[in-house]
Amino acid sequence: MSANPVVTLMTDFGEQSPYVAAMKGVLLAVNPAIRIIDLSHQIPPQDLRHAALFLRGAVPCFPPGTIHVIVVDPGVGTDRALLCVELLEQKLLVPDNGCWTLLADLAERPPAVTRLTEARYWRQPVAPTFHGRDILAPVAGHLTLGVTPSALGTPLTTWQRISLPAPRLTADGVAGEVVFVDGFGNLITNIAAEQCQDPQSGVTIGATPVPRRVRAYADASPGTLVALVSSFGLLEIAVAQGNAARQLDAAVGTPVHVRRG
Amino acid sequence: MSANPVVTLMTDFGEQSPYVAAMKGVLLAVNPAIRIIDLSHQIPPQDLRHAALFLRGAVPCFPPGTIHVIVVDPGVGTDRALLCVELLEQKLLVPDNGCWTLLADLAERPPAVTRLTEARYWRQPVAPTFHGRDILAPVAGHLTLGVTPSALGTPLTTWQRISLPAPRLTADGVAGEVVFVDGFGNLITNIAAEQCQDPQSGVTIGATPVPRRVRAYADASPGTLVALVSSFGLLEIAVAQGNAARQLDAAVGTPVHVRRG
Amino acid sequence: MSANPVVTLMTDFGEQSPYVAAMKGVLLAVNPAIRIIDLSHQIPPQDLRHAALFLRGAVPCFPPGTIHVIVVDPGVGTDRALLCVELLEQKLLVPDNGCWTLLADLAERPPAVTRLTEARYWRQPVAPTFHGRDILAPVAGHLTLGVTPSALGTPLTTWQRISLPAPRLTADGVAGEVVFVDGFGNLITNIAAEQCQDPQSGVTIGATPVPRRVRAYADASPGTLVALVSSFGLLEIAVAQGNAARQLDAAVGTPVHVRRG
Repeated sequence: MSANPVVTLMTDFGEQSPYVAAMKGVLLAVNPAIRIIDLSHQIPPQDLRHAALFLRGAVPCFPPGTIHVIVVDPGVGTDRALLCVELLEQKLLVPDNGCWTLLADLAERPPAVTRLTEARYWRQPVAPTFHGRDILAPVAGHLTLGVTPSALGTPLTTWQRISLPAPRLTADGVAGEVVFVDGFGNLITNIAAEQCQDPQSGVTIGATPVPRRVRAYADASPGTLVALVSSFGLLEIAVAQGNAARQLDAAVGTPVHVRRG
Repeated sequence: MSANPVVTLMTDFGEQSPYVAAMKGVLLAVNPAIRIIDLSHQIPPQDLRHAALFLRGAVPCFPPGTIHVIVVDPGVGTDRALLCVELLEQKLLVPDNGCWTLLADLAERPPAVTRLTEARYWRQPVAPTFHGRDILAPVAGHLTLGVTPSALGTPLTTWQRISLPAPRLTADGVAGEVVFVDGFGNLITNIAAEQCQDPQSGVTIGATPVPRRVRAYADASPGTLVALVSSFGLLEIAVAQGNAARQLDAAVGTPVHVRRG
Repeated sequence: MSANPVVTLMTDFGEQSPYVAAMKGVLLAVNPAIRIIDLSHQIPPQDLRHAALFLRGAVPCFPPGTIHVIVVDPGVGTDRALLCVELLEQKLLVPDNGCWTLLADLAERPPAVTRLTEARYWRQPVAPTFHGRDILAPVAGHLTLGVTPSALGTPLTTWQRISLPAPRLTADGVAGEVVFVDGFGNLITNIAAEQCQDPQSGVTIGATPVPRRVRAYADASPGTLVALVSSFGLLEIAVAQGNAARQLDAAVGTPVHVRRG
């Protein structure tokens, strides 16, 4: 065990209310040596697909042994399960709502999933509205102290899954859609880099043709609408030094088409 | 002393300006071993009651020995005191504006309060507009190095206090109000869980009756207006998978009534 | 080397997308012992002057040995250089866009600048849209492991610079402008404290005379428009317990004049 083990936090709590801070306190109360890393607390409220794409972009960068506490949890207080997922040699503590399952596609080995049932690792009393503070955070703390996932509950073999809408083959190319908008207003689609590698292929978003294919934003002059391969490995539509979401009034779900060149 | 002592930061500075970052630098300049934990920098500017409720929700979760630096400070540069408060086996460095005093109700022992007067623990010169950087952060750093609160200044026995508006008994129940709105738009009131335990009691917010009493948000179908006990231990009004503040146009101060069942 | 070396992060990424989290993962993947400190992820997108003033306010507070990763990078993917800058006994990893150069004025010794060219310290493959994750973060990690700047690439003697608009002397005083707006709506100008020390000098912003000179915000009653010396050491215009930017409809570029008293 590390002298100062890392636990990351990802939530949809925002930072005006004390929920994130309370979870940090609980982590340190269980193990005062933890290094806490904020992944984000700005996930749009209860947006499981956003959370799933966020985790897909972030978790694979972390080293083996990292523990992630993930709280986007519209079902808090119901009988939905809470999970400890072992994947990519890391551990995720997460409600059973599928938001971690895009990561499974990136892993060589299938995940080991434990349903959290051992209440002795929880904070008491458990508030029915805040399992992040009262179950997930203290369990993460105990993992850093050497408790094994198998001690936390019972193995699960089925769980909720989330999937992205699949792009469709059309007569002359591929039809997909925007699945994520980043903080610059860049529009990330569900079309894989491999499906749009031909630089002659024409890209259209909504009814707007995208005039330029580039490698990087600054390959075009400021204000130009461009298509490129995002750092996610997916087709992305952007405005060089601008905000494509605002300029095109585009959002998650806006259709995108790639015509064979 | 811990090898990597924890200091938390709570401010109303936001993150666009360098004020939070400057405080972090000063902490590490005094003691490079500190682990810094962000509680929040999104407290609404100069909103002492918001800060007080935030601290009440967060500080009790932290372990003994934690040091908190709290900068919501409309009186910066005046002769208002700066305090080191020992409470709940933790230490708070905070302007004397009452924002920590809701915590005193949760403690078994009265707080020990020191007025910071020993300028040798401060950063020089002290800017009259930024005591967080020049007094509170360096003092926190020195506390982690083993300086005792009594060395920081002189004991105080009176200080500013803040209190929530008290709910009033009415002919047929209890009248209170919204005191905090969280990031989901959930409305936390000043009515204690004990004052509204009867599941038959009718809850009204403004002129709107709340149709459902639930244990957890997801006990009602999405969009339903519900009343429940918040993780603060107070009556809360929410919209399942929605935003009650927006839907009801409610805010801090909106009246809430609980009728005996 | 510290047991838990500090690396700070400053970006314009915001926190909805996974970019910041990915960089944190990469840092820990190179050196799992790093303590990560967030400076800010709320720099306005691609606003180099804002970044420059932020760094000027924050970096000088940090102790020798701190490593800063700075990603405000409108030129990502082009042939603009990436730099390791040694300055103020700290190290900055930053695109060559000038955003660090206001710091050079504060240093006694000139900076040592290395162009990052040694790809063996990078994450492969390098995405042309995300050098923060694939070059700057892993290089920072290697610096914490004892790699020296000279091993990272080749020395540079010229680089991009950024400068603030200079205030101009006028017939009866000094003419400057707002260069930074903080989270309270306080307006920081490019006029140095030394240029406006006379308490009788009249300050005007746009067409509005500023009626009060104060040392601290709370020296005037709430709502009063005041001029004071900011914690940056520059003339600042504020509204006591209010928001000057909103009240005056002022922003970066709004003219400010100081008349000799």
